[in-house]
Amino acid sequence: MSKHGGAEPSSPHSSPPSAHSLGDMDPEDFRRHAHQLADWIAQYFSSIDLYPVLSRAQPGDIRAAIPDDAPEDGESFEAMLADFERVLMPGVTHWNHPGFFAYFAISGSGPGVLADFLSAALNVQAMLWRTSPAATELEEVTLGWLRKLLSLPDSFEGVIYDTASISTLHGLAAAREVAVPEVRAKGLAGRKNVSRLRIYCSEHAHSSVDKAVILLGLGHEALKRIPADGEFRMKADALEKAIEKDLAAHARPVAVVATVGTTSTTSVDPLPEIARICARHKIWLHVDAAYAGVAAMVPGFEWILEGAADADSLVVNPHKWLFTPFDLSAFYCRRMDVVRQAFALTPDYLKTVESAPVHNLMDTGIQLGRRFRALKLWMVMRHFGASGIRARIAEHMRLARLFADWIDASDRFERVAPVNFSVVCFRANGDDAFNEGLLDTINAGGEVFLSHTRLDGRYVLRLAIGNLRTTEAHVARAWSLLQQTFDQLHAG
Amino acid sequence: MSKHGGAEPSSPHSSPPSAHSLGDMDPEDFRRHAHQLADWIAQYFSSIDLYPVLSRAQPGDIRAAIPDDAPEDGESFEAMLADFERVLMPGVTHWNHPGFFAYFAISGSGPGVLADFLSAALNVQAMLWRTSPAATELEEVTLGWLRKLLSLPDSFEGVIYDTASISTLHGLAAAREVAVPEVRAKGLAGRKNVSRLRIYCSEHAHSSVDKAVILLGLGHEALKRIPADGEFRMKADALEKAIEKDLAAHARPVAVVATVGTTSTTSVDPLPEIARICARHKIWLHVDAAYAGVAAMVPGFEWILEGAADADSLVVNPHKWLFTPFDLSAFYCRRMDVVRQAFALTPDYLKTVESAPVHNLMDTGIQLGRRFRALKLWMVMRHFGASGIRARIAEHMRLARLFADWIDASDRFERVAPVNFSVVCFRANGDDAFNEGLLDTINAGGEVFLSHTRLDGRYVLRLAIGNLRTTEAHVARAWSLLQQTFDQLHAG
Repeated sequence: MSKHGGAEPSSPHSSPPSAHSLGDMDPEDFRRHAHQLADWIAQYFSSIDLYPVLSRAQPGDIRAAIPDDAPEDGESFEAMLADFERVLMPGVTHWNHPGFFAYFAISGSGPGVLADFLSAALNVQAMLWRTSPAATELEEVTLGWLRKLLSLPDSFEGVIYDTASISTLHGLAAAREVAVPEVRAKGLAGRKNVSRLRIYCSEHAHSSVDKAVILLGLGHEALKRIPADGEFRMKADALEKAIEKDLAAHARPVAVVATVGTTSTTSVDPLPEIARICARHKIWLHVDAAYAGVAAMVPGFEWILEGAADADSLVVNPHKWLFTPFDLSAFYCRRMDVVRQAFALTPDYLKTVESAPVHNLMDTGIQLGRRFRALKLWMVMRHFGASGIRARIAEHMRLARLFADWIDASDRFERVAPVNFSVVCFRANGDDAFNEGLLDTINAGGEVFLSHTRLDGRYVLRLAIGNLRTTEAHVARAWSLLQQTFDQLHAG
Repeated sequence: MSKHGGAEPSSPHSSPPSAHSLGDMDPEDFRRHAHQLADWIAQYFSSIDLYPVLSRAQPGDIRAAIPDDAPEDGESFEAMLADFERVLMPGVTHWNHPGFFAYFAISGSGPGVLADFLSAALNVQAMLWRTSPAATELEEVTLGWLRKLLSLPDSFEGVIYDTASISTLHGLAAAREVAVPEVRAKGLAGRKNVSRLRIYCSEHAHSSVDKAVILLGLGHEALKRIPADGEFRMKADALEKAIEKDLAAHARPVAVVATVGTTSTTSVDPLPEIARICARHKIWLHVDAAYAGVAAMVPGFEWILEGAADADSLVVNPHKWLFTPFDLSAFYCRRMDVVRQAFALTPDYLKTVESAPVHNLMDTGIQLGRRFRALKLWMVMRHFGASGIRARIAEHMRLARLFADWIDASDRFERVAPVNFSVVCFRANGDDAFNEGLLDTINAGGEVFLSHTRLDGRYVLRLAIGNLRTTEAHVARAWSLLQQTFDQLHAG
């Protein structure tokens, strides 16, 4: 137990609960510790740029610093907080850091964090309407708010899941339910009349589509990745040809996944054309707008969801670019009855009768239990307001275009994809190894964290903006570091 | 917008963010609001018994009290908190209430709530080791702590998911991966050599097994529910017969799900015998110990996981009876390589090279992103210590036995299932309608909330203990209310 206890209990107030108390932490102790944490977090929020963005921990460092066994006796909150700072914080990669430019940069904004604190304290489990009417109805209302801001028609019913992986999984499960008669009861195996099934997405679609196809028992080979054009958008004519070829070979098209804001380059698949193809062939259309969907509320960007009204399902992630702490994924479906048909199943111990029809959220998905997640979306949207949200998303896009302009004007770097939203794909003049070395050197510096992808076989750097603390100065600093490091590596 | 704003901004400090500020809530404002919330939650925790347990909201009440559109301009935190109290709180069912005896009663304990606050603030997304080494390694360590307390062998590797539904889904997905050659690539449909598949569980197993079987494309008919004995435990001989019959008919047994603590009656399936049957026929054994598993750490209850060491996978939910706020489900697997084989898939933009081999948590499941959930399990286990946890679980079981004794001594009520852990199943003398009326009347009173189930066709009341605030006095009060209401309904 020697690794336990970076700090010893320092006063009678901080002693662990005695054996005769069999309840929870005393409310007054809770109050005191919550105030300590409030101060700690506020301090952290105002000094995040003092930490290295990317953790410098080496594999095994954290594990080695923690005992192998749970303590036999309870410990003080002070001891835990001290260990948190001493042992865990060096192992944290700071997604809150203004220099976080990797993957999709995100923000767990203040109002969202406060709402999540409240949600943890309420600890409601919103499986049934009656197990928390507020959680069920606030989910409906806030998803309505978001739907209207995105100009999606009210034929879309919404439900909150944890991740886009789960949202896309449900979209494709519903598609399977429609395409394969009696799949709920009879499944897919050993059936004579169930032919080979097909799902289509662009070669740039997210890996969650692959995982969903595998999980649903369709088989990875059922996923046909359609080639993209020079700007990384799915080629609609290639999609149509693939569908026709499969139909001729007696395979059954189940769904098309169109992406609004692909992960590598944030490209936007031609939704209106894809929707027309899906309508013509009666194929379920799922739209993965997990990252970029929210941009549709910014004037001039409405076009990105054009055609989405004809989709069957759509996912957008407030935990990506709507300032909501992870996890909160919004799934919209024009045919939520199909999702219910696929999954609703009420054992006796969960049967309830209410005074009027209600939605029991457990019926719209694979997970029975669910947190009160709507609370954070509600607080985030009210704190910033629609105008504040639009302004922030627009600002992130302005910063990305600014950075792209610097790249474009440089003779040491080149841009390799259009800047559609808040992500810039670029590379330094030099081979893949040079670019990889450049990225590693910059990330090791601790001031910024960028990630990479691979496009047309080449190693490509990505700068993603999405953190509310990121200002023009931080983007300028990233640019300056890139140039300096380029020169150093060339000189070295 | 007239429904917005139960309170107006009351001072210059509480004004909404102005349009020129494009960042997050100011850290000093965050600090102030976090202190407000800390006080609010501490006050709530010390006065929960003043609220009705079960919300008295009528369907649509909450929805009707909230505007249909997001506010255009940001609002003050004070206004939100006022609306939260005025509009949402009446729609909250209080899972924290000491009189919450429904379903499985749970506790989001103080240390767990504080840890979740911290986790929301850090907002790390632990898909890759490098995106937060501390989240990845603390998950490994704390799941090791729990595994040892449950006396499971170290051949079990653990991973944290959100819910038992997702844990069981992954257990059965791994079973499918083993049973069906090339299922990842080729799926289940239209294959000549893939015969009908079978999953087995007791007639009392949880609905999450049904949902997983449906999602995996096995078809609901593939799930064979094995009859239970008089104490609601799966009959091992009936299981063996079902397997042999299916094998004779050329169906392929994929997995058996054994339950340790069924939802209706907390019965324990005969794990050692089931494990022997699975070993003999080389069938994947998944153990659903979501609720009762933690009791194995209490002296005298080790037997409940006897045989689990021979299982292939097992789920236990710290958010059920280990005082951890929802959501945190621990999935253990002796063959996590199979889970990885089923789901690992790394697109270019997520490829990383570290200085030593690491686990990237996105490889062990369907969800790419994941919160820093281990933090709350770590704080809960350290705050209470192993001895404190054992004592609390034992106390809940003592209270349940006490209540069962009262029932047994009564001539107005009868007990209808053994009390294995902290749940008592009973009914009043009278028909189903009388029992249903009794339950509705008691729940409408607001002091306690019990739920029901159906056993052998009869309506049965359930009293579940699992909340840290529940004391003997609360259980006695429930008993007193049951007797009073029984008499009132008879007199009426």
